[in-house]
Amino acid sequence: MRIIIKNVTLVDGLRVNEGCDIDIKDRLITRISPAKVNPGDREELNGVQIIDGAGRLAFPGFINAHTHLSMVLFRGLADDLPLKEWLEREIWPIEKNLQPHEVYWFALLGMAEMIRSGTTAFADMYFYMDEVARAVEESGMRALLAYGIIAESYNAHGRRELEIARNLITDWHGKATGRINVALAPHSPYTCSYDILEKTRDIAVSTGVMIHTHLSETTDEVERSYAERGMSPVQYLASLDLFSVPTLAAHCVHVNEADIALLAEHNVMVAYNPTSNAKLASGIAPVVQMKAAGVNVALGTDGAASNNNLDMLEEMRWAALLQKVATKDPTAIPAIEALRMATCNGATAIGINESVGRLSVGKRADIVLMDIDKVNMLPSYDYISDLVYAANSQAITDVIVDGQILMSQGHLTTIDEERVKAKARELSVRYRK
Amino acid sequence: MRIIIKNVTLVDGLRVNEGCDIDIKDRLITRISPAKVNPGDREELNGVQIIDGAGRLAFPGFINAHTHLSMVLFRGLADDLPLKEWLEREIWPIEKNLQPHEVYWFALLGMAEMIRSGTTAFADMYFYMDEVARAVEESGMRALLAYGIIAESYNAHGRRELEIARNLITDWHGKATGRINVALAPHSPYTCSYDILEKTRDIAVSTGVMIHTHLSETTDEVERSYAERGMSPVQYLASLDLFSVPTLAAHCVHVNEADIALLAEHNVMVAYNPTSNAKLASGIAPVVQMKAAGVNVALGTDGAASNNNLDMLEEMRWAALLQKVATKDPTAIPAIEALRMATCNGATAIGINESVGRLSVGKRADIVLMDIDKVNMLPSYDYISDLVYAANSQAITDVIVDGQILMSQGHLTTIDEERVKAKARELSVRYRK
Repeated sequence: MRIIIKNVTLVDGLRVNEGCDIDIKDRLITRISPAKVNPGDREELNGVQIIDGAGRLAFPGFINAHTHLSMVLFRGLADDLPLKEWLEREIWPIEKNLQPHEVYWFALLGMAEMIRSGTTAFADMYFYMDEVARAVEESGMRALLAYGIIAESYNAHGRRELEIARNLITDWHGKATGRINVALAPHSPYTCSYDILEKTRDIAVSTGVMIHTHLSETTDEVERSYAERGMSPVQYLASLDLFSVPTLAAHCVHVNEADIALLAEHNVMVAYNPTSNAKLASGIAPVVQMKAAGVNVALGTDGAASNNNLDMLEEMRWAALLQKVATKDPTAIPAIEALRMATCNGATAIGINESVGRLSVGKRADIVLMDIDKVNMLPSYDYISDLVYAANSQAITDVIVDGQILMSQGHLTTIDEERVKAKARELSVRYRK
Repeated sequence: MRIIIKNVTLVDGLRVNEGCDIDIKDRLITRISPAKVNPGDREELNGVQIIDGAGRLAFPGFINAHTHLSMVLFRGLADDLPLKEWLEREIWPIEKNLQPHEVYWFALLGMAEMIRSGTTAFADMYFYMDEVARAVEESGMRALLAYGIIAESYNAHGRRELEIARNLITDWHGKATGRINVALAPHSPYTCSYDILEKTRDIAVSTGVMIHTHLSETTDEVERSYAERGMSPVQYLASLDLFSVPTLAAHCVHVNEADIALLAEHNVMVAYNPTSNAKLASGIAPVVQMKAAGVNVALGTDGAASNNNLDMLEEMRWAALLQKVATKDPTAIPAIEALRMATCNGATAIGINESVGRLSVGKRADIVLMDIDKVNMLPSYDYISDLVYAANSQAITDVIVDGQILMSQGHLTTIDEERVKAKARELSVRYRK
């Protein structure tokens, strides 16, 4: 399939170019050139689909570097609670009875929300990941999927957990024409024993996959780590040589200078989740310091139970503004830096920066179009400022992933949205209080 | 005109009631009753306009308690700067050449944005306020308007400033069938001399209008106040007996315990602007402490040059989440409290809580409808949680102010949106860098 986006304003983490034609062939961006005046552009010619880009921005699809997608099932079910209580009293008990088909349908609901808000790829950690993989295959999105391993020891149920995680690699890594990759996800240093962490590392080395984990999310976690092991969670994972594997660490809210130096030294990639960390009152991650140390910081929404949406436009705004107020420096994380965190840094964080994260020739065509002629974005002096500080997802019109159109003029093409919404209503009945 | 909203879920700061019919006659809510099944409801019958409320929330229109509406003209023109530099180097120089017709057209642009995001009333402080008043009269919105007085002394240009402010009261207070009220707005304790503040107070007393001012926004302002007068800005205004007049104070970011006690003692009302305070890195206001002391805290977006939008849905989310993370307490400002700040507290803040801010019989019909059947809001366990933590303005379908429909199924009825957008593009050309 060939697509030409005509006369669009191209924006990515490095540049803004008005009046571009973007050629897409099969799955790739094959040409970016000054817009040509060409009568009849609006018709489909010789099987080429023409998209009129006038008055629109084209930017690289957002990469949601940390979420628990199917938790949209629990959106609004338990708010305004501390992380520990929220997990232990509310979320974990209901997750015990979670059914595979629920994970499938709510993964589709979450992907519909993500596509609508301009996200093209995401890193997910949850249960029944075969169901999520099946949903990703159907939706056309790109994902790094991982089964969340929670185990007190290898000999308890750790053996079984690792088997599930390993099977996911066998069944899905590199599948869906390369749109799906699989990672290993020991849930956190406090929910996995040392032997599980070590075996996870060994499987990652032997299979060549990344690790995705939660790290230093709360003061409680850090204090317990010092009490139990005399070191921080970051130092603990480093001591187990976990970081010999490319690692995506979500949160890193409570990391000190030594931790940050370790993260940088081992090229650990961080997924910053400002909204979730604020809602759960976990804290504000030292993003400015991590970036100064050379850590690749990406952005994630976390699950919708602690956010409560999957909107990366909001997450960019939160990242920039929260860092400004936290550091008392209004120049911290300027708009373009927030855009990079949501795009190219995200691509690096989930291990696909060779193929996505920027709009340039040879990259996979993961492109979002936004109508900038909106009352909340005019007068349009600075497109990146408008995108990061003013826009909302209402302005997003078209979403392309891997050269396939997933949303066309506001209509989802791969997900039957009405059916998914009906299923969401039906399946949520048993959770209502 | 009579309107009936059929079978809607009513939400305000005190309750959630599913299956309600809301009767609106002339400008008032005349009845709220359990929904009646009534064939033919979708037609207009005997001049009654029927709005189908099934699958929708009805909530009191948001009240934006602090903005500089026409500054949407400067949206994205100068970002990522400290308040002082931003004001002195960027904003004030360009404001010197601002033209009345620019203020008019950008007031309309800002109101289009506010209506689209569910705001029905706002407190504005700016220049050429006759133009804003004219735009408010046309748009059908409700507003507390004030001319921003900046003067080093009465004898310099203070006399003229006060004359302009006083004329606005004469010309517009109580006009547009009561939708427009006027306040006096000494810009701040640091931009007005003591004699101006005293004369403002006296005019407020004699004309019976409120005062709207900026107060304790930055550490710099507070430090200078102590250096120059040996007291905080709050103490200073109290010492001038300014608070003998009902006062709406925007920001109050840097207030200590004694300041908060003074604000509470004098019933000073606070407009909290979390997004603007974050973007300018001014700080995080002690909202939890102010509320505990009994201060009425409302919400404002501030101007779009420091936000960069006028979206009260976002402001509610920011208020709740930022207070949670700032106080390290995830139970701080629960969703319903944020909703109250944006509705009934806002009504109190701008002096119209007798007539708006809640959905109950006898109140003016200032009502917003939201479609909750959205992928980013399902499965709908808790409507207030969804409204505060998940929604975006895309879901807002209808807006009614004073019994008049300002937006019907996504279409603005009182503002010619295409014309306003065209004017915004045209008039912004001379500001482009």
